Amino acid sequence: MRENVQAPPLEVSDWLNTKDDLSLSALKGKVVVIHAFQIFCPACVCHATPQAKKIHEQFKGQPLQLIGLHTVFEHHDVMNKAALETFIHEYGISFPVAIDKPSKKNSLPMTMKKYQLRGTPSLLAIDQYGKLVINHFGQISDMQIGQILGHLLADID
Amino acid sequence: MRENVQAPPLEVSDWLNTKDDLSLSALKGKVVVIHAFQIFCPACVCHATPQAKKIHEQFKGQPLQLIGLHTVFEHHDVMNKAALETFIHEYGISFPVAIDKPSKKNSLPMTMKKYQLRGTPSLLAIDQYGKLVINHFGQISDMQIGQILGHLLADID
Amino acid sequence: MRENVQAPPLEVSDWLNTKDDLSLSALKGKVVVIHAFQIFCPACVCHATPQAKKIHEQFKGQPLQLIGLHTVFEHHDVMNKAALETFIHEYGISFPVAIDKPSKKNSLPMTMKKYQLRGTPSLLAIDQYGKLVINHFGQISDMQIGQILGHLLADID
Amino acid sequence: MRENVQAPPLEVSDWLNTKDDLSLSALKGKVVVIHAFQIFCPACVCHATPQAKKIHEQFKGQPLQLIGLHTVFEHHDVMNKAALETFIHEYGISFPVAIDKPSKKNSLPMTMKKYQLRGTPSLLAIDQYGKLVINHFGQISDMQIGQILGHLLADID
Repeated sequence: MRENVQAPPLEVSDWLNTKDDLSLSALKGKVVVIHAFQIFCPACVCHATPQAKKIHEQFKGQPLQLIGLHTVFEHHDVMNKAALETFIHEYGISFPVAIDKPSKKNSLPMTMKKYQLRGTPSLLAIDQYGKLVINHFGQISDMQIGQILGHLLADID
Repeated sequence: MRENVQAPPLEVSDWLNTKDDLSLSALKGKVVVIHAFQIFCPACVCHATPQAKKIHEQFKGQPLQLIGLHTVFEHHDVMNKAALETFIHEYGISFPVAIDKPSKKNSLPMTMKKYQLRGTPSLLAIDQYGKLVINHFGQISDMQIGQILGHLLADID
Repeated sequence: MRENVQAPPLEVSDWLNTKDDLSLSALKGKVVVIHAFQIFCPACVCHATPQAKKIHEQFKGQPLQLIGLHTVFEHHDVMNKAALETFIHEYGISFPVAIDKPSKKNSLPMTMKKYQLRGTPSLLAIDQYGKLVINHFGQISDMQIGQILGHLLADID
Repeated sequence: MRENVQAPPLEVSDWLNTKDDLSLSALKGKVVVIHAFQIFCPACVCHATPQAKKIHEQFKGQPLQLIGLHTVFEHHDVMNKAALETFIHEYGISFPVAIDKPSKKNSLPMTMKKYQLRGTPSLLAIDQYGKLVINHFGQISDMQIGQILGHLLADID
């Protein structure tokens, strides 16, 4: 679960909820949290996405960038951009959401492959230097997330 | 919330999770519970649908028929049959689900209009004689549902 | 869990939250629900007692009498009447609470012995004729309680 | 809620769950978390105490000392040492618990007065240098606690 490698660039086909595309290299100096999800994944929709909204709320004003990453690896036809836009609207998501770039030969999208995500939901945390320090698949408690991000932010001060 | 009128026939364009189409007239003698929902409605997905699954589990073997009703009144393009099938699969729904018949001139589907549903989620309960006795919009507690259905089933004995 | 025997009289050393002592024989014609608990039992305090408060709220105005029963079978010195009064005050319990009569030779109080309760929390339901129909030890879901009580009340109508 | 003063010594009449008395001065170099509670305070028993147990579990092996503090300011007769011992046993509390020293002239115990606690539950956090950095009355989210403690622990590294 704890990694210590340089986080590879995100491969994104579209950005939603943001005027400007984001890039990890431009986010150096901040903690980056990536909430990888799919709109028809129950553990995402009813647990990890509400948790991501809590992160967004709690860490406002701090050097932390939260990014949603729609990593579609199944049911591609119904998890398209229009469906994602509806989901974002209905669930009141206001943080930037990236669509993981589809891969040609494989059902796994490109960022998912690069980061070797095991499925959704996954939570990634990247420190101020661009190191991937957390790559967690499945549920993780609010207290654990708080501890990890509290630690990473303390290192910036 | 309590009604006492004959429940009008369901207007359904498609049935999922059932070999045979269901009809209220053929269900006379049983209590019928209808869980009206939309797949991108947060209060449905994270509250009312899990509650419907609990109803399905608890009342197994009793003269009660649970029906899901996908009443799409917004975002029609992304709440299509294929998306509903994915939802049913991912959320492990094993009770019959009807697709409310789209209306031509109006964004409200036909059963929704007939029953004057105020939105999703809605919970309908129909007694053994085909009377609509509950038409509830929004959240309702597990204990209240239990009481209503316990009462309607007792009347059958 | 389902019983069908005449409920024996309660053996009570003290009544709280009521002007007049209650007796099962005087409650004939009503459904009686007994929430057996101890003030230092975690599953009682954080689950069954809040659930009893929900029962009290939901079934107001119906022919149903809810009774708390403090069945002390351990730590007798600190689960005394004064402690129970503090508990009732702090947890905002407004339904009648009986103190199960201590037994001389045995650590189990007398009502607990008579009803063969297996521990706390236990939920008892007695029908309008004074029959004990439910004697449940441990957690029970809100939906199940609702169903049981809805059924018993329907039989009164 | 955020303080930055030297934490005054705890005034304790008894220690439970520990062989040796603890003192803040001897805990310098560690983060100290104090969970102030009363055994008949519902928000303590059903929220803050379970949360304290989560803290104890999550931060095991780290330079952090969790202390329960029984700050009795009402119902003194039934919140005595024997009742607290029963509570600790029944709720499976394994971290050290201090009994706040009763005050002669006043119903507030001495540590409670010194720290100007507003009631129970209160959560206090003291940094490695003995500074009181958090003095929070009422509920606080798991994610906030995680962040605070993650930050304080990061400063030790």
